[in-house]
Amino acid sequence: MRRFIASAFALLVLLPLLLAQQAADLVITNGTVVTMNNQRDVIEGGVVVIRGAKLVAVGPASLAAQFTAKKTIDARAGIVMPGMINTHTHAAMTIFRSLGDDVADRLKRFMFPLEAKFVDRQVVYWGTLHGALEMVEGGVTTFVDMYYFEDEVARAAKQIGMRGVLGETILNFPAPDSKEPYGGFALAQKFVADFRGDPLITPAFAPHAPYTLDAAHLKLIADETAKFDVPVLMHVAEMTDEVDTLRKERNQTPIEFLDSVGLLNRRLVAAHCIFVNDSDIALMKARDIGVAHNIVANIKSAKGVAPALKMHEQGMRVGLGTDGPMSGNTLDIIGQLGYVAKLHKLVNHDRTLAPSIEVVEMATRGGARALHMEDKLGSLEAGKLADVIIIDADATNLIPNYDVYATLVYGASAKDVRTTIINGKVIMEDRKVLTLDAAEVKAHMRAMAKSIAERVGPVPK
Amino acid sequence: MRRFIASAFALLVLLPLLLAQQAADLVITNGTVVTMNNQRDVIEGGVVVIRGAKLVAVGPASLAAQFTAKKTIDARAGIVMPGMINTHTHAAMTIFRSLGDDVADRLKRFMFPLEAKFVDRQVVYWGTLHGALEMVEGGVTTFVDMYYFEDEVARAAKQIGMRGVLGETILNFPAPDSKEPYGGFALAQKFVADFRGDPLITPAFAPHAPYTLDAAHLKLIADETAKFDVPVLMHVAEMTDEVDTLRKERNQTPIEFLDSVGLLNRRLVAAHCIFVNDSDIALMKARDIGVAHNIVANIKSAKGVAPALKMHEQGMRVGLGTDGPMSGNTLDIIGQLGYVAKLHKLVNHDRTLAPSIEVVEMATRGGARALHMEDKLGSLEAGKLADVIIIDADATNLIPNYDVYATLVYGASAKDVRTTIINGKVIMEDRKVLTLDAAEVKAHMRAMAKSIAERVGPVPK
Repeated sequence: MRRFIASAFALLVLLPLLLAQQAADLVITNGTVVTMNNQRDVIEGGVVVIRGAKLVAVGPASLAAQFTAKKTIDARAGIVMPGMINTHTHAAMTIFRSLGDDVADRLKRFMFPLEAKFVDRQVVYWGTLHGALEMVEGGVTTFVDMYYFEDEVARAAKQIGMRGVLGETILNFPAPDSKEPYGGFALAQKFVADFRGDPLITPAFAPHAPYTLDAAHLKLIADETAKFDVPVLMHVAEMTDEVDTLRKERNQTPIEFLDSVGLLNRRLVAAHCIFVNDSDIALMKARDIGVAHNIVANIKSAKGVAPALKMHEQGMRVGLGTDGPMSGNTLDIIGQLGYVAKLHKLVNHDRTLAPSIEVVEMATRGGARALHMEDKLGSLEAGKLADVIIIDADATNLIPNYDVYATLVYGASAKDVRTTIINGKVIMEDRKVLTLDAAEVKAHMRAMAKSIAERVGPVPK
Repeated sequence: MRRFIASAFALLVLLPLLLAQQAADLVITNGTVVTMNNQRDVIEGGVVVIRGAKLVAVGPASLAAQFTAKKTIDARAGIVMPGMINTHTHAAMTIFRSLGDDVADRLKRFMFPLEAKFVDRQVVYWGTLHGALEMVEGGVTTFVDMYYFEDEVARAAKQIGMRGVLGETILNFPAPDSKEPYGGFALAQKFVADFRGDPLITPAFAPHAPYTLDAAHLKLIADETAKFDVPVLMHVAEMTDEVDTLRKERNQTPIEFLDSVGLLNRRLVAAHCIFVNDSDIALMKARDIGVAHNIVANIKSAKGVAPALKMHEQGMRVGLGTDGPMSGNTLDIIGQLGYVAKLHKLVNHDRTLAPSIEVVEMATRGGARALHMEDKLGSLEAGKLADVIIIDADATNLIPNYDVYATLVYGASAKDVRTTIINGKVIMEDRKVLTLDAAEVKAHMRAMAKSIAERVGPVPK
């Protein structure tokens, strides 16, 4: 009888709680939750709740009791944060990684000929899968890609489950996927038509650069992308040649040139922007463009340090990018953080600049803003898409952790990411990628690279 | 009968081979052996043979049949190479990692007071163990350390089994291990007496910097270290203040000043050397000093890029260092490689400079040369000490591998090191450190850091 009373009492107490509990698909508990919300809240012992593709709640430990979840992940005191956004890459170029890294004038003398010779559908598909694998392993949840056969990039991204803003490349000479100059324009139209509305893929146009398309075609692209409101991905103000030629031929900066052809607008994600002056920056800000800052690739090629910190400080939309793995070699954003923090200190002769919290912001919120997707991505807040990563608290290099932003920027490596969740789906858990056979992807990459190594010939001096 | 004949025949064939086989302790097979010998041989499917503390053979796959080994490690096509040498650090400062990273004028305003308040024997011992754990995990086999209670540093190094060139710090104000200014001098004498001849530890004097000791004491140290032929570790030409004051007071550069007090000689390992001119470099070369190049720490503090590439190109003894984990945050040398390659390209506006093979050389042979230990360390050659690491060939970021030096410099991370062997002993195998309880070390570090966090007060602006 006493047992019955106790049980009835327990039921009376627990029933309202049970009835009040909401259903969830995934609950992450016991995290150091770096929300990157407007208040930059960091919640110790925090909880993140996911239903479907979205975050439904982010808060303290007590939150967990309000939800019944199909799956729970214990973050074991690890850092739980928004997935990183890689705002500029060419993921398929993994196939050429470590080839001719220290060659002078490399783009024209080595890379374009290499691509003409070897890039086909298979290379793009498997190369992107390999690159996406590396990104997921390194905590990147969204990537912005410009390449050829971009439908194969989309196929690979969907297969692993990554979010992508993907642009079919257009330029004024024959490309691996089109024999005619500017053949990419029609391919881009088809690509956009095929992938518009996809939950993971945002299709885009990718005019290669101001120096590889004429003004007429750039205007055509401006009109077409305005009509369908699709993003435009482009290399901008990256080369001294580009700047010099536009100055001579049009007496314009690359930024002024793009404005004159109608491309400088909120659809544009401009990669690099190394050679821009204060007047350019003011114009870029006024037109509300996004900027992809690729520090590692830019200094490896000795081009320079883009004034990206100044742009960020002025409230512009600045995200971080790796560039392709032939330029920056690795595809994770964590590997960029330390470079961003240190290079802007160095060139400005001030160690207090680019503090770690601002660098983490660029990697997350900044990337989302560069894509004009900050309503959906870039922070852990109820209502946003569930792109979440968990970073190991037990890595020797991350102990002690007095300041979580400093720990991320100056101490962390891509290999410290344990778990990657994209669009509510667990893509990697405890470093095992669940959505594809990683060994198969690597074996394919090795076989393709072996074949290329046999045919590539000597690297130019 | 036929069976007997077959057996006898087999014995006749195999016996001479068996008799000819030499005993070994450890054989590593199936590696991409990056020897860093004079010819820079890279041996595919190569073998490394270890007996006692030394390498007895390095060569092709066929070599394995000549040895019977107590233990064999299959490198599984991974990169087998000389252990990396960290030529400048303060390993115990792991205890302060991620504290006040972006503070202005940090050394005097924040670090010295912090050390005065918190550094004791326990902190140095456990902090060094934690740092050594991180170094072993990242493929560092020798570290050069300057700190207080340096006997505790030596104790920790011997416990994990790392090779160390360790210097007791001497300076002109009270230090954590001595109430009197210059108290470190007597401590250094005792430290050297206690550890001379140790198989792993080379004890040294560590006068802190030209700006923290007077000329008389520097001369005393020069005489004492000459008498016993022990290394001298020192911060040199790191600060603009240091340069300005010496110019004003003595009309000398830091290098000229050190020469005038007798310290500029082959026993000196000079850390940083950022502010040196061509005449200084010529003098440094003539005096045959070693240089520790700490690129990450130097640019994080916005000090500048030392002309270390120029020194290296002139045949000087230049190794790489991480500096302490409050300055550079991580303690592995692999994390320095990409920075070295890229920063020297950037500041010299030439992407062909600092090619990856030269950067790997600095990390290995260069470090050995900076310590005047190139007869024993820095390459995989019979007769040298067996400090060897194996890097995973299966890491996504290391595939493909067209050029092993580029793969190491632009692609690898500390976490790609699988196995670390020091002085012939396997210290880490397949990422498990065998010589200490890593979980215990991390737990101690967390507890000490928690206590410090509660007492440290606000970080200065």
